[in-house]
This record gives sequence, C-alpha cells and structure tokens, in this order.
Amino acid sequence: MASFKTLPGFREFYPEDYAQRKHIFQIWRQVARRFAFQEFDGPVLESLELFTTKSGPEIESQLFCFEDKGGRQVSLRPELTPSLARMVAARANGLKRPIKWFSIGDNFRYERQQKGRLRCFTQLNVDLLGEAGPSAEIELIALLVQSLLGFGLTEEDFYVRLSDRNLWMLYLATLGYDEDAIGGILGVVDKWERMPEEKLIAQLQEVAGEKAAELKASVDAFLKLDSVDAIRECFAGVESSDEAKAELDARLSDWQTLLDGLGAMGLTGFIKIDLSIVRGLAYYTGFVFEAFDKKGEFRALAGGGRYDALVKKMGGPDMPAVGFGMGDVVLGELLKARGKMPQFVESLDFFIVSGGDAEKLTALSDVALLRQAGYSVEYQLKPQAFGKQFKAATGSGARFALIYGSEELEKGVVKLRNLADRSEQDLPRDRLLEAVRELV
Amino acid sequence: MASFKTLPGFREFYPEDYAQRKHIFQIWRQVARRFAFQEFDGPVLESLELFTTKSGPEIESQLFCFEDKGGRQVSLRPELTPSLARMVAARANGLKRPIKWFSIGDNFRYERQQKGRLRCFTQLNVDLLGEAGPSAEIELIALLVQSLLGFGLTEEDFYVRLSDRNLWMLYLATLGYDEDAIGGILGVVDKWERMPEEKLIAQLQEVAGEKAAELKASVDAFLKLDSVDAIRECFAGVESSDEAKAELDARLSDWQTLLDGLGAMGLTGFIKIDLSIVRGLAYYTGFVFEAFDKKGEFRALAGGGRYDALVKKMGGPDMPAVGFGMGDVVLGELLKARGKMPQFVESLDFFIVSGGDAEKLTALSDVALLRQAGYSVEYQLKPQAFGKQFKAATGSGARFALIYGSEELEKGVVKLRNLADRSEQDLPRDRLLEAVRELV
Repeated sequence: MASFKTLPGFREFYPEDYAQRKHIFQIWRQVARRFAFQEFDGPVLESLELFTTKSGPEIESQLFCFEDKGGRQVSLRPELTPSLARMVAARANGLKRPIKWFSIGDNFRYERQQKGRLRCFTQLNVDLLGEAGPSAEIELIALLVQSLLGFGLTEEDFYVRLSDRNLWMLYLATLGYDEDAIGGILGVVDKWERMPEEKLIAQLQEVAGEKAAELKASVDAFLKLDSVDAIRECFAGVESSDEAKAELDARLSDWQTLLDGLGAMGLTGFIKIDLSIVRGLAYYTGFVFEAFDKKGEFRALAGGGRYDALVKKMGGPDMPAVGFGMGDVVLGELLKARGKMPQFVESLDFFIVSGGDAEKLTALSDVALLRQAGYSVEYQLKPQAFGKQFKAATGSGARFALIYGSEELEKGVVKLRNLADRSEQDLPRDRLLEAVRELV
Repeated sequence: MASFKTLPGFREFYPEDYAQRKHIFQIWRQVARRFAFQEFDGPVLESLELFTTKSGPEIESQLFCFEDKGGRQVSLRPELTPSLARMVAARANGLKRPIKWFSIGDNFRYERQQKGRLRCFTQLNVDLLGEAGPSAEIELIALLVQSLLGFGLTEEDFYVRLSDRNLWMLYLATLGYDEDAIGGILGVVDKWERMPEEKLIAQLQEVAGEKAAELKASVDAFLKLDSVDAIRECFAGVESSDEAKAELDARLSDWQTLLDGLGAMGLTGFIKIDLSIVRGLAYYTGFVFEAFDKKGEFRALAGGGRYDALVKKMGGPDMPAVGFGMGDVVLGELLKARGKMPQFVESLDFFIVSGGDAEKLTALSDVALLRQAGYSVEYQLKPQAFGKQFKAATGSGARFALIYGSEELEKGVVKLRNLADRSEQDLPRDRLLEAVRELV
C-alpha cells in the first residue's frame, strides 16, 4: 500500500485548524469592509508569461510552473498582484476611482521551507489604485495597523517600518550613481542587516569600484536617519542640483503629509522610519513598508508599497497604485505565541434525544423545522438508550436538549432541558418554533 | 506587448462577481452549520498517486498534473474526496464518530469546456463518515435539499433523483452476471439516456453476447421502477437464491428507512426514485443521488452517494461513508436563470465630508475612531470642494454624511446628515462614538 502524504510545504486543515484559519479570514474581511474595500479574486493558475513579465525570467525557478495538456506554459500564482493589474488594466475606464480592492487567496512558491515560510500560503492582498498622493498610503497603512489590532495585538506587539525607494534613488543619484548602479546598490541594501561587512563591501565594489568604502559610509549614514528633519539635514550635507533640491522638497512634503495623516489617525506609535526597508522587488516606486513583531522573533508580518508603473506594464493606462500583502503563516504563529489565537468551540443550539423508532420520526420532523428556521441541531444517527443520548447531548456543547419520549408525544409536547442549569420545561409541539424563539 | 488573458476555463471575479460567489459560500456555510457539520480543507496540490489510486490511471488524462522542481509527480486536485479519505484515515482512531465534515474549495479538471463545466470550479463537499445505516443518507440528502432551499429555490425548481448501486448489483447478479460484467453493464447504464439504442445494444453485447437484447429489456424494465413496491415486485419476477432474497429484504428495509426519514423531514416532494442514476465512479457502494433543476435545462446541481470502501483503500480502517458535492457553476447559472441571485449593494455607514487641510486631519482622527469601533467609513482621498464631496457621498450609498467644516469644528461638533431623508443634526465630537451608537 502506498503511503499518502501531503507534499512538503502544503497544509491540511482539520476542523480545529480550519477554525483558526476562519478566524484570520474573518478579521481580515471585517477590517477591509470598515475601510470600504471590496473583495475580488483572480485565478490561481495563470499563464507563466504573466509572472515573468512582472518579475523577470528569474522568477521561474521559484514557481510551480508546467506545460498544460494544451501545450500552454502555465504557473500556479506566486502572488496576486499581476492578475490584479491585468484585471484593472482590462476595465480601467469603467472602474470608479480610487479602486479599493482586497482579496484573500492561496499563493504558491517553490522555495526552501523555513520557519514561517511554506510552499502554499494564504495571503490578504489590499490594493488602492488611482491615487498618486500619500493619502493612499495613509489608508493602506492604517488598514494594516487596524487589522493587526483586530486580532488583539497591541503597540507592544508590532510596528510598521516605513521607507521610501524614491528617497534612496534621489540620494544615490546625488552621490553620482546612475539608474543601473542604484538598482545594484539597493539590492545590496536589501541584504545589509544579514551580511558581514567584507561581503557588503565586495558587492558594493561591483558598482562603485574603489569608492566602495565611501559608498558604504554614505549608506550607513542614510540608514541611521529616523525623522524627516534628519533626512533633510542629511541631504543638506551633499551638493545637489536645483532640480534635485526641488524634487527632494516635494518628496519631503509627501513624507510630512503621510506622517501627519497617520498621526491624525492615532498611529504615530506604530510607525518607525527605517530606510533599511527597500523590498527586493524592483517594481516598487515610492513609499515601502513592512510590519514586524516587536520582539523580532518572526519574519515580516506584512509588506507593501507603491507600484505606479505596473498597470501600464500589464497593458493598462497610467495608474498609480499602492498595495500590501499579509500572509497567514507568520501571522498565525505570532497570534499563537502571544496567546491571541482564540479557542474555538462549536456552538450548537439543540441536541435531540428520542425514544423508539416512532418518536425518532416525530423528532426528525422537528429537526427539519428547527434547522430550516436557522438553528443548529444534532442528534444520534444510531438508535441508542436515553442515557447514552443524554451523555452525547452534554458532550456536544449544545445549549438545549429536546426530549421526545412517548409520554411527551402523547401530550403533544416536547421536553426542553437547559443543559447549563438542567432546568426543564414542556414546549407545545404545534407551536414549537414560536416557543423556541422566546427562549433562544 | 503581450496580451494577458486568463486561461480557458478559469475565471476572474470582479467585486460584483465576487459578491455572488460570497453569497453562495455563505448559504452553504449557514446550512452546513445548522446540520452541525464542521469545515475543513485539504491541499489543492497533491501527489498524483493519491488520485490514480482512487480513480485508476485513466484519470490522469483529465488532470492538471506535472513534475515539480523536486521531481515529484503532482496534480492539482480534481476533487477533494481522496484528500478527505487520507485525512480521516490518518486520525481515524482519534476522531469522534460520526465524522461530519464539509469543505468549500477549488477543484481542477482538464476537460473540454461546455456549458456549466469549467476547468476550475468551486465545490461544496459534505461528507458523513462512520455510519453504515441509511440515517447517514437522510442527513446528507436533507442537507442537500435545505441548502438549495436556502438559495430561495423551491419544489418547483429542483428535485433529487435517488438510486442504489447495490440494488443494481443484486439485480444483475440474479440475472446471472458476475462482478466484472456488472461493472461493464453499469458503465453502459450511466450513458443510457444519451445513447441511441443500437449503440447500447452493441455495448451490451461486449458483456452479454447474444443475450444483449434480453439484457437490454431487463435494464429497461428496471429503469422504470419508481417505488419500493415496484422494486419488490420486479425482483419477485426473477428466480433467486435464498441468500439473494435475504439480501434484497435487508436492502429494501434500508430503502424504507431512508424514505420514511426523508418523509418525516417533509422532503418526500423533493425525492424521485430513479434507477438510471448510477454515477460513473466505481467507488460508490450503495445509495447514490443527484439533484437536478426540474426543467432539465442544466447539468446536475449536485451528486453523491455511499463510498464505504475508500477510507480503507487510502490506508485507514473500515469506515462507512456518504458524501456529496455541489459545484458553484451550475448552481450560479440556475440561480440567475430563476431570478434567485440577489443584487448586492455595498453597505457603507459614513461618508466624510471635510473642508481644508486642518479639517481633514481632524476628520481623519474620527475616521480612525469610527472604523476602530466597527463602522465602515469612506472619504475622498483627494482634496475636493464641498459640493463634489457631497455628490460622492450621495453616490456612495452611505447612510450618513459626517461634515467637518471650520464652523462646526470651532463649536466642537460635527454635522451628521442622514442621506436618505436629508435631516441634519450636530453631534458633539468629544462624545462622537456614544452619539453615533444611539443613531446607527
């Protein structure tokens, strides 16, 4: 006999696991609704080209991709954003802006398994398209924070690191680097915290040659900045063109608007300016942000940023966009570690206890009636003695037992027992629903 | 520029489409809860062997299967049942019986696209394991009917065809056919309604040789049976062993129990005995059933039956089981055709209208407050004149506008306008939540 196992990195959800999953989805949906985002979804299988167009051919090594029976190169989606961009591009003219959409769905990556990283994970995606100014970021970051608060996490548990790829580009351009070099440098910055100094310098040498040590010092200085004033001062220390100065002023004004908006929403305590966040993906074009647990025990809880160029790349019009994703794996681990994952108890309204075959049939008609009226009702499928049925009723967690004995049925009643306080009363069977509605 | 399209047979769900999808899921979940079934889920990607073990190697031609980057033969799931059987098998001793589980998830089949048939569809699966008697079928068929009623469909719209593979086997064995021949004959019966007579006879000849015409007449006679009495009579006309007679009696007793139970639940009008339903899959071992629209315009809405042998085949203990699946595609088409798909309107509690930048910041703090308290709140991201903001508020479908002008803020209030009756009142900002709670 073959032994059947789930594939590595894939999960099964027994009911007790599914209850936790459902809890996460419920809070996500609740908070998205408060922010007036609408749910949508795309296909989990797409043409491979959709993903390589967005992320380059390198992405293929991380994909569950294959040729389908019709000879198409296809892939399970590693993320939702390319499908979203296509959907928005296809109907760009008909959609009311700003477009505020969210989705909860499975994504697939063929990666080495690590703590908090699986090959199939479920992600909340929240995207706001059609707004170029920082008011879009205010909405998204506020939603991100409120969703984590929705799980019972607090300012003690998590924070959001806020950064800006535009500011990096402005800074590195001022230092004399061109676009290609900047891409290379940001690739190194992305690994800054995790890489030993000599390796960093070696990698910087590839773009900066003998100026690598100087560049490293400049990057180190930039990484220390933790306020708009500090950023302004840092730029004041470098010579720059009038054009660059004007661009910096506009950028810092956006920063101020963003921080003021988040401040007005009471979120200052959750935000930390941290320019080490550049996010690996080159498609981000402005503010970027990631949420982390404060103890630093887990991977990022969520991450996102502005990607103004993507919709156009996918065949649509110019369409500014900001979005973030939050996966269920790290979030679930954090909630469990902080004691914020509730215990889920099945709620059951009625457990039916009945005598012989005739009483059982009578009971079945009331079972159907009560369920049709919206109550949850359980009973023993097999014929059992009263005592065993009562034991099952108590063990089921039901609020009430409904007892169908021959005596009761002769009187045209059914006995209701409150399983919490063991009180009993007779209910008339011909007005059962009305009688029950008064109680439950 | 490449043009990006969804793959054939896959769907995108814009928010208005997703709202319909959500409606279907919601009714499914609601009804499953009333019947005290618990939600679970399995992986959408599994090892290919899991599916070929259940359904034979022929199934591969209908699968999205491939070799993953680790050299594993894997497949998107065409159905959930094999994963369910594995999950139950793995914990058979620890699970309280009967096991009453349901799941809502995507399945994938590489099939020719037809009306009501896509390559990716979402299915409700409901399974009851651990009960060998027909009380299990009563629960499942009742749930099937109540879920369709839950969508607003009525006895005019749909019915359930009930059949029995055991009865067929008993009948064909009595006629002198062995197990292999019976499998072949049932394969032909499955196509009976759709195939011309000469083709049927040609196919029956393969198992029955020169007795094909006689066999065809026997099958035709059997297909006409529409009551337990008629079934009993039909068997009385064929010579059979005492053993076969005893088996028939037990079988007909199960039939009576099933029909009595469904009758007690008030479902007789939904059930039609129809022995033409044999379901293609050889793994069914007893009662089988399918739900159809009464006008016969659509494919089956749902189908299922007893599969007592599968859990053991998947490495578990002997475990009787009944289950059914209901897809979202045909159901959605039927609901639309019968005018039972609701129009979905976004509900929004508050739309914020504010003056200049200072008022906007004040408004933002209340936006955060109201959302945190559970209300859905929208506002214009871009600075706009009052008039435009009011127009957006009216178009948003919000119940109330909250107006932040400089006059109001000086007085420490915010103006609330009921967008339905245009009445207005001032609310104190320092007790905004309390004031709002009295209204909404």
